[in-house]
Amino acid sequence: MFEVLARDPSCNARRGRMELAHGTVETPIFMPVGTQGSVKTLHPDELELLGSQIILGNTYHLWLRPGHEVIRDLGALHKFASWDRPILTDSGGFQVWSLAKLRKITDEGVRFQNHIDGSRMMLTPELSMEIQASLGSDIAMLFDECPPYPCERKYAEKSLDLTTRWAKRCKDWIEKNQPRSGEGIQRHFGIVQGSIWADLREKSARELVNLDFDGYAIGGVSVGEPEEEMMKAVEHSVPFLPEDKPRYAMGLGTPPQILEMIGRGVDMFDCVMPTRVARHGQAFTLDGPIHIKNLAYERDERPICESSHPHVARFSRAYIRHLFRAGEILALRLLSFHNLHFFLRLTANARQAISEGNFLEFKESFIRRYTQAKSE
Amino acid sequence: MFEVLARDPSCNARRGRMELAHGTVETPIFMPVGTQGSVKTLHPDELELLGSQIILGNTYHLWLRPGHEVIRDLGALHKFASWDRPILTDSGGFQVWSLAKLRKITDEGVRFQNHIDGSRMMLTPELSMEIQASLGSDIAMLFDECPPYPCERKYAEKSLDLTTRWAKRCKDWIEKNQPRSGEGIQRHFGIVQGSIWADLREKSARELVNLDFDGYAIGGVSVGEPEEEMMKAVEHSVPFLPEDKPRYAMGLGTPPQILEMIGRGVDMFDCVMPTRVARHGQAFTLDGPIHIKNLAYERDERPICESSHPHVARFSRAYIRHLFRAGEILALRLLSFHNLHFFLRLTANARQAISEGNFLEFKESFIRRYTQAKSE
Ligand SMILES: [Zn+2]
Ligand SMILES: [Zn+2]
Repeated sequence: MFEVLARDPSCNARRGRMELAHGTVETPIFMPVGTQGSVKTLHPDELELLGSQIILGNTYHLWLRPGHEVIRDLGALHKFASWDRPILTDSGGFQVWSLAKLRKITDEGVRFQNHIDGSRMMLTPELSMEIQASLGSDIAMLFDECPPYPCERKYAEKSLDLTTRWAKRCKDWIEKNQPRSGEGIQRHFGIVQGSIWADLREKSARELVNLDFDGYAIGGVSVGEPEEEMMKAVEHSVPFLPEDKPRYAMGLGTPPQILEMIGRGVDMFDCVMPTRVARHGQAFTLDGPIHIKNLAYERDERPICESSHPHVARFSRAYIRHLFRAGEILALRLLSFHNLHFFLRLTANARQAISEGNFLEFKESFIRRYTQAKSE
Repeated sequence: MFEVLARDPSCNARRGRMELAHGTVETPIFMPVGTQGSVKTLHPDELELLGSQIILGNTYHLWLRPGHEVIRDLGALHKFASWDRPILTDSGGFQVWSLAKLRKITDEGVRFQNHIDGSRMMLTPELSMEIQASLGSDIAMLFDECPPYPCERKYAEKSLDLTTRWAKRCKDWIEKNQPRSGEGIQRHFGIVQGSIWADLREKSARELVNLDFDGYAIGGVSVGEPEEEMMKAVEHSVPFLPEDKPRYAMGLGTPPQILEMIGRGVDMFDCVMPTRVARHGQAFTLDGPIHIKNLAYERDERPICESSHPHVARFSRAYIRHLFRAGEILALRLLSFHNLHFFLRLTANARQAISEGNFLEFKESFIRRYTQAKSE
């Protein structure tokens, strides 16, 4: 299912290829997030223009609305959302943690009140697997507990043991139910927890690898910790993960962070940030982020960035600024498209640099230019 | 500039062709409205997919924001909005009337406070022409006064005389300044007023025709009057307009109204309704309008309408309903696109029916089906 095609000689960066039920994914890859079955503001035609190889769906959101049974009855998520390339679904655990109210975690699962109408609900490892099976995603994530940052060592230990017990229950469910994705089989990724403790990360990784999953994610990152801790979480996990399985850092990150993670051997990324900041008028450029509302762009005839895709580059900063100030939806579309293009181009360039054996040079030159303007 | 290609044998419907600075427009035609330099929610690529031949821009909005000088300095509206087919701009008068506050009409023009920051401003016939010249539209509309409905005969008479005096001043400005549109010349349409009085409509039409413009609009419709009055306003104006000039009914209307107007010899239509109701979840179908939020569509696998364009028809009503309820922008995009497609297809089918000499049959069969579901 996963093959390493090239390794960078001077760091842990690697280029790989994943074969999934709905197609091939070249890694390292950035995965746009389609929380509610739509990558915000974009049409699937535009995701294809962007060269998106795989997108995310959020189990929690789709479970609540329209409901996984509705999606299952309509032919599963690919058909529902009219997207025939790979989809990864998360377990719903992180959204329960970040959006729902009155959470109570027990061995059985998590009780909570949902954020839409306050109904009392319960999500368990088995139910998470069942929902994801109904959605028919190419990759389903195991149901885990993501401890907050900071947290006590005691809590992290207990949480990690719970995550491992839940992983076993997920594994049992998978073996019994053999979930499918379209014409192929659904793949399953375990999630390494352990907060900031190296020995806990190692323990979590070893226990999950023992259970044998199709890939492994580094969880519990991007929860408010300093960047240094984020990098350490990866460094403490990767050595205990198999070379021949894909690795996924969840919910990350800025362009420099993504390059740093690739250099540490991570293959897959997702983040809502490119589309979220777009809706606030922020655009990524090779010289760092800009705010399109800025008066400086009132008569700026240049495209957002010299790297912009033609779908966006045909418009001036002046025009996009005008649209944004006038509250026109096209502004949100163009900025969202541009930002996703920036992240997808970043991972595409990283892949090429790894193939050519000069990833480190690419990474350093990108980060130098990206951060220079800010520090001047 | 305008040529009648075919006439329907059994009514006043006609098929024509307009040659404008930025290209050819086949009539009868529906013109999507791009108030602030963007047809709401859509990318110009989608306007091309829709086969939009000409779009509208609103002088009042673009004058206030970003300002006509900004647009002029950036190469005029076509370049600014990255749209190289024809554009029609209105005079700004109607928006002052419907959006601005503390309006005071004098012979000189209209004083008002704008709706964005309350600044005191004045719009005159000359300034409206100057702004539209800066925007570089293919067709500029004369600055008129649009009386409300209902209004006193006395007011309608005075208003009509003012509109004629303003038309003369517009004409003088045009002759002196010879405004251009890209590589060609800007065209100018007079606006027939006169409210509900046949003799005033005739007077207005004759006075404008005497001044000799490139086309004529029927104004003062779609201001709250009953449909019967709307049709009469057209019937009372058309006989006094030249056969060899295009006729434009401003701000109209429902699909049946558009067909009725085509049957009365109108060539051009614009309306914000298709995109506005889309943002409230309404979609046009051959069986009349539907509300996508309706529970009936929860598991409906059909496209919005059998007439849907593939860009939208790939999605089920169930999916679009889900997106709409979840607040996803893609829902607004798909409904806006669909509704504009419905109106553009309507005028395209009308053109074909006129060419084939069976417009009346087409009109009646369309309206029968469109209104049937509602009356059952
Ligand atoms: Zn993120
Ligand atoms: Zn209208």
